[in-house]
Amino acid sequence: MTRSQSRTRLMLSLVAEPGDPRLVAWRERCDPVELWHAVVRGAPEIPDRWHAGAADAASRVDGVLRRADEVGARWVVPGSPAWPVALDDLDQVDGIGQVTGAPLGLWVRGGGDLTSIAAAPVAVVGARGSTTYGAEVASDIAADCADQGHAVVSGAAFGIDACAHRGALLGGGPTVAVMACGVDVEYPRTHAALLRRIAEEGLVISEFPPGAEPQRHRFLVRNRIIAALSVGVVVVEAARRSGSLNTLHWADLLGRTTMVVPGPITSQASCGTHLAVRDGKALLVTSGHDVLADTFGIVDADLPAIGPGARRVWLRLGAEPQPVEQLARALRLGTVPVLRALRELEHHDVVARDERGWRRETRVTNREGGVG
Amino acid sequence: MTRSQSRTRLMLSLVAEPGDPRLVAWRERCDPVELWHAVVRGAPEIPDRWHAGAADAASRVDGVLRRADEVGARWVVPGSPAWPVALDDLDQVDGIGQVTGAPLGLWVRGGGDLTSIAAAPVAVVGARGSTTYGAEVASDIAADCADQGHAVVSGAAFGIDACAHRGALLGGGPTVAVMACGVDVEYPRTHAALLRRIAEEGLVISEFPPGAEPQRHRFLVRNRIIAALSVGVVVVEAARRSGSLNTLHWADLLGRTTMVVPGPITSQASCGTHLAVRDGKALLVTSGHDVLADTFGIVDADLPAIGPGARRVWLRLGAEPQPVEQLARALRLGTVPVLRALRELEHHDVVARDERGWRRETRVTNREGGVG
Repeated sequence: MTRSQSRTRLMLSLVAEPGDPRLVAWRERCDPVELWHAVVRGAPEIPDRWHAGAADAASRVDGVLRRADEVGARWVVPGSPAWPVALDDLDQVDGIGQVTGAPLGLWVRGGGDLTSIAAAPVAVVGARGSTTYGAEVASDIAADCADQGHAVVSGAAFGIDACAHRGALLGGGPTVAVMACGVDVEYPRTHAALLRRIAEEGLVISEFPPGAEPQRHRFLVRNRIIAALSVGVVVVEAARRSGSLNTLHWADLLGRTTMVVPGPITSQASCGTHLAVRDGKALLVTSGHDVLADTFGIVDADLPAIGPGARRVWLRLGAEPQPVEQLARALRLGTVPVLRALRELEHHDVVARDERGWRRETRVTNREGGVG
Repeated sequence: MTRSQSRTRLMLSLVAEPGDPRLVAWRERCDPVELWHAVVRGAPEIPDRWHAGAADAASRVDGVLRRADEVGARWVVPGSPAWPVALDDLDQVDGIGQVTGAPLGLWVRGGGDLTSIAAAPVAVVGARGSTTYGAEVASDIAADCADQGHAVVSGAAFGIDACAHRGALLGGGPTVAVMACGVDVEYPRTHAALLRRIAEEGLVISEFPPGAEPQRHRFLVRNRIIAALSVGVVVVEAARRSGSLNTLHWADLLGRTTMVVPGPITSQASCGTHLAVRDGKALLVTSGHDVLADTFGIVDADLPAIGPGARRVWLRLGAEPQPVEQLARALRLGTVPVLRALRELEHHDVVARDERGWRRETRVTNREGGVG
């Protein structure tokens, strides 16, 4: 990825709204530099608004970069070593409504290391209008995930999202706030201190340029990033029609593990989560332990002992043996860390190997009690 | 069924503990009268305790019948018109632990009509140590089922069971208490008034003879009757190891619809219900409406309009057409009530017929909202 391509993607992101299906259609036909040229010259089929904004974008780009620099934010694009490859999965699915596609790039603000944070993150999201119960539960689950080494991804909104971030920070793990506005925009205003804290210990990220205001549509666009970045998504509370169910839908589409926390059936705030279970759209989870067991599919007894990196490798293993090189390629990791993870898994007797490679060692989960 | 066979079954129930697997083994080899003769003469392989109790049983039988008469209880046996044929399913399954088989007969106390009550009952059971939440929910769900014409079956225990009975009575429907002691034994003592009320408007039933005390083992034996009698079983609250999960297990074994109500994950009383969902042993339900929709499988919109008798017929229908006579035989009903039910279902466009008979008209359930 050349510096010019990175800058071109940035300029494109200033003329075209992230998630726009036309952006995906164009990217299938040409590379970003060719697309930018088409935008500048106002080629046929280029939306008028893109062409009209081109000159402005070109003049704004340095100011935007300066602003980013002021808040310690960097622009990361696909193909760069820091790029979370999980986001590329967004180009493999159809999208929801008028939202689709991987982002042109990401603004990343904060002290956290995006690559290690992106190793095996879990999203904890939910209603803005949460109950005390939901707030407590979101915080506990996030703390448990963080304690086990998993970054917690959420949307920095009121209610469940804020509790998820706070729980992760309390759990001693990094947390990622995915914004529906610029990474320099303190939204909601009362979360200014929380956002600064997240940026210090984790990351605040966005595909919207610095200065971009949160707009209604942008929350739905943002939700796909939360889902794509995460290995599993858990919704703690959601009313019947709720933005967090949109995030769950993205997770489902992307093949992420979809989970919800139940609550009292007398609580409107748990209505959407119960419906998701009834509709077979999500698993029911009752703890951070359930979240990790369901997301990473490791037998319960071994879960606490196996680190997050090894869990990610485990996820890629199946009944058929795979060579280390193939696993590393699929995970876009070097063979050394993959082999280290496999040794760790081997130590816990959950993998087996033969001359063809590594596979899962299937054992029966032995939960205490139950109706059986 | 002759009067002598009925009396023989009664005497057998005085020597052999209900649910004893040896009773099933013997019943497969000979009829009750032959078995009784073997018990009396102390044939080889007859348990000593049965033989030792035979003389006593023969002398007790008139006293037992007198006692039953005093509390308005009758002895009903398989093959009699009042027998709930659903209980025969117990002879088709293996059983749980050391409990198995259909009862020798049932003591039935109260003003309700067992045959009509047994048309399409729903069991609502749960923890003795219920929370206020569980109590409220059990009462609401039972009231909704009763209001829709379904008898509510439960175990008359403290907590959820009592709330289920009370809710059904409030909902204006009959309710059935299945006892782990004689139908004349007021257990628990503080439920004496409730049990009398149930007997007035519904039924108190038991396979244990009048005077029998509740013993620990008998609750597990009793649970299979609750499950077998019902079309669906819903557990409202249950700790990780709970008797109501045993009832749920029986329901699962018998092919009844198994359901649980979720609750706060912070509540120990909902631990067992959540585990049942996670283990795929039960559906999650959030209302009486969910219970009826899941139990009778009728598309949501039509549910309130279709009566309980028609719902029972609907349950027997499939994608392949069946003649009315075949349906009536399977349901052990006359062709006239079955035809009446089919006409009702036809009116709601949920069945179709051709020259081969009647089948379900498949339509897509259209739930509002959801994550899809």
